Amino acid sequence: MYHIDLNSDLGEGFGVYRIGNDKDIIKCVSSANIACGWHGGDPLVMDETVGECKANAVAIGAHPSFPDLIGFGRRNMTVSPKEAKAYTKYQLGALLAFAQAHGLKVQHMKPHGALYNMAAVDMALAKALAEAVREVNPEIIFLGLSGSCMITAARECGLKAASEVFADRAYNADGTLVSRTKEGAVIHDKDLCIKRVIRMVKENKVQAISGEDITLKPDSICVHGDNPEAVEFVKAIREAFAAEGIAIKNIGAIV
Amino acid sequence: MYHIDLNSDLGEGFGVYRIGNDKDIIKCVSSANIACGWHGGDPLVMDETVGECKANAVAIGAHPSFPDLIGFGRRNMTVSPKEAKAYTKYQLGALLAFAQAHGLKVQHMKPHGALYNMAAVDMALAKALAEAVREVNPEIIFLGLSGSCMITAARECGLKAASEVFADRAYNADGTLVSRTKEGAVIHDKDLCIKRVIRMVKENKVQAISGEDITLKPDSICVHGDNPEAVEFVKAIREAFAAEGIAIKNIGAIV
Amino acid sequence: MYHIDLNSDLGEGFGVYRIGNDKDIIKCVSSANIACGWHGGDPLVMDETVGECKANAVAIGAHPSFPDLIGFGRRNMTVSPKEAKAYTKYQLGALLAFAQAHGLKVQHMKPHGALYNMAAVDMALAKALAEAVREVNPEIIFLGLSGSCMITAARECGLKAASEVFADRAYNADGTLVSRTKEGAVIHDKDLCIKRVIRMVKENKVQAISGEDITLKPDSICVHGDNPEAVEFVKAIREAFAAEGIAIKNIGAIV
Amino acid sequence: MYHIDLNSDLGEGFGVYRIGNDKDIIKCVSSANIACGWHGGDPLVMDETVGECKANAVAIGAHPSFPDLIGFGRRNMTVSPKEAKAYTKYQLGALLAFAQAHGLKVQHMKPHGALYNMAAVDMALAKALAEAVREVNPEIIFLGLSGSCMITAARECGLKAASEVFADRAYNADGTLVSRTKEGAVIHDKDLCIKRVIRMVKENKVQAISGEDITLKPDSICVHGDNPEAVEFVKAIREAFAAEGIAIKNIGAIV
Repeated sequence: MYHIDLNSDLGEGFGVYRIGNDKDIIKCVSSANIACGWHGGDPLVMDETVGECKANAVAIGAHPSFPDLIGFGRRNMTVSPKEAKAYTKYQLGALLAFAQAHGLKVQHMKPHGALYNMAAVDMALAKALAEAVREVNPEIIFLGLSGSCMITAARECGLKAASEVFADRAYNADGTLVSRTKEGAVIHDKDLCIKRVIRMVKENKVQAISGEDITLKPDSICVHGDNPEAVEFVKAIREAFAAEGIAIKNIGAIV
Repeated sequence: MYHIDLNSDLGEGFGVYRIGNDKDIIKCVSSANIACGWHGGDPLVMDETVGECKANAVAIGAHPSFPDLIGFGRRNMTVSPKEAKAYTKYQLGALLAFAQAHGLKVQHMKPHGALYNMAAVDMALAKALAEAVREVNPEIIFLGLSGSCMITAARECGLKAASEVFADRAYNADGTLVSRTKEGAVIHDKDLCIKRVIRMVKENKVQAISGEDITLKPDSICVHGDNPEAVEFVKAIREAFAAEGIAIKNIGAIV
Repeated sequence: MYHIDLNSDLGEGFGVYRIGNDKDIIKCVSSANIACGWHGGDPLVMDETVGECKANAVAIGAHPSFPDLIGFGRRNMTVSPKEAKAYTKYQLGALLAFAQAHGLKVQHMKPHGALYNMAAVDMALAKALAEAVREVNPEIIFLGLSGSCMITAARECGLKAASEVFADRAYNADGTLVSRTKEGAVIHDKDLCIKRVIRMVKENKVQAISGEDITLKPDSICVHGDNPEAVEFVKAIREAFAAEGIAIKNIGAIV
Repeated sequence: MYHIDLNSDLGEGFGVYRIGNDKDIIKCVSSANIACGWHGGDPLVMDETVGECKANAVAIGAHPSFPDLIGFGRRNMTVSPKEAKAYTKYQLGALLAFAQAHGLKVQHMKPHGALYNMAAVDMALAKALAEAVREVNPEIIFLGLSGSCMITAARECGLKAASEVFADRAYNADGTLVSRTKEGAVIHDKDLCIKRVIRMVKENKVQAISGEDITLKPDSICVHGDNPEAVEFVKAIREAFAAEGIAIKNIGAIV
């Protein structure tokens, strides 16, 4: 029997603003990365989102960010590891309060946007994030890019790590993602995307952009609810998984 | 044997900015109200302040505020009880993360500035704050103005409440503070201040501005470290208490 | 010949967030109140909105707010007149930069949300806002609630004032708006709304909620583009005005 | 006759926080870089600082920053040139409002912290800043690091550029500053520092760290008032300049 987690970013509204399609995508995923107020999300949104996750039996995780609301956390910032560690604790703690109030556990932590991208390739930064999690609660799983510094740092810190893969992204021969600036980085053929993730789950293999097969062991697939097509794609993945005998379970049940 | 808590606001710096005299006042108090980033404080400051409290055996509490960094949380805002509740959870959670990392418990929650003043006289707001604490952790004590809505709301919510008094403020016959806009609101005679708090602690009495004695049972005295004179005054209180057989203990040991 | 201005709030998005229906409503109005970053709006949004106003020959105004992005500037804050004055200058100046870059003048200033509501009834606050405008550029018109402190304060400061009325709101006998908390405050019959504003423009009269006619001289009508129905309503107003010989002109051409 | 400008960062307090030694340093400089609220400064502080500059006959300039109050604008951020341009306009405009209210002109614009450092070596970013200035007011001078992209970009945009030098920093043979990470980057011998700037002003020469003399034509020297020693150093520079017949004039009188 095969199993995999589907994770998505939720609760990224702020004040009067709303973004994303939380109501639809929440029905399709097993784990939610909840914005903690620094790139999106505010206390009311967090409270409501945790409640919706509980109602839909979706496991929750913190989705900390650089302090960059105006840039939605998508811009690299040269924060020190010490700063990143403290920022992560702060945001993780904030989510813990809402989780506690709803009687839920925080299952995982997945960095957001530029913090995720930088921590994927910067071991000192990745380690700072892992230490933040461990010092607050060592039961929390670090969800990071498959094969990246985040996975290594988490394990070295004694945390459980969950490897995230992308259905629509091409991989280099070394297991890293092909940069979006390069041709072929994004795979637009939805059927091919689904075939690739099925193979990742069942065979732990994917064809790299250079042609050869590489090994990668996914724990979770990142999906989006930004638009109706995105939600349809997630539904198609779910149907294909059902047909292939792949069960969708949250990360905590997998790693 | 008599006992009382001394509490002070700590960790109110932000980024490169510092304010207050944390290093001196921390040696004089038994409980610290730690800013949680909304009127002052930031993750690095919070982490450092919690560490200093641990080193000085000072119990820690969350000091949540309206979202008003530019106004230091001193300006009334008409936030709804629902908003205030979520804001309190968020800030309390953030402190919990740093407490957890340092192996400390969060002893209490005391609202900051305008939030404190508004909650003192607004039962719906006070109840929202109390519910926030209860839902996150019902062991946390609500530290609020003696005789105010905060004390009532906390007890109605099933929380332990700690009554705060002020050494240098005059009281009305109903136990409320004389407004700062009225003459005589602030008592400038330091010796008189000390005599008044000693009587509050030992006899649970204080002379109201109207002349008669009123009853009030203090659990904690609010002190400040804003300037060298303030710190000297706190030291004088401590010496007088020692001479009077009044032990200084943190709130958790009292209520 | 009759004339009137139609004003609407524009450019209230922030970062990745968008709100309102700027593209449709901009075609219907003669003056735009542009968010200045404190309740909504950011530099990129401001720049784009000023450009769109220029392309659509819509006059621009600053729409300053309390510093309350999380509450969209809708919550009362007890800022001092001195603070409000400085906040207004700051936001007005920011818009002036974008206006200058696009070769436009800033026609007016209309406070946003809670700042508008508070300044309507608080002469010291209204005066602070008027002084801010005068000190930065005395040619800028103060757009405020008809009959409110804002109109009085602006004129006392030597500014031109423009009186704003609402098509769908009931008026008290003294010319103030009926509070939204009272029954009948909002008029839901769209035809009646249009008849009322036509009469306001042509006869300077409106029937108060108490039954008698009152006098009120409108310079501008506040309209919204929040949803398709709102835009349809504005279009219906425009058609009715055309049929009645009421020309739509911006405030600068009226006061 | 020789002349040079002395510039310093002023008005970097925020809310209740104060930083730097504005009252002392303002008496020593000819130009002030005024924080615009994004790394420090707030509307009240800006208003007061502009007033103090007027009282001390110090020319004022905008000191825009990345949106990073918590990091004091000292952390690199990968904002796009388009974003940087809009951010600069916004902050410059805000200062223009206070300048206008005080009857002053904004003499110059000098980017702050990480924005300055990044624009020194990134021509696209430097050009974005220069365009922002030109579009708002082409009379405003761009004050940037001598020999950097900022100077080139400003001139290519048709702006006047002012070249800033540092008394206590070593220079590479190509006229760039020796990185602070390298030994010898900071010159601690105050007398040597003063001799170097005198030679820069009178001979347009300085000895590079590699030993040879290089040419550099300074318009302004950056000085600080962070501590009493810093202020003493500035006073020593002023005395030495007086003895050498070097007049201190603001940038507008020089470039």
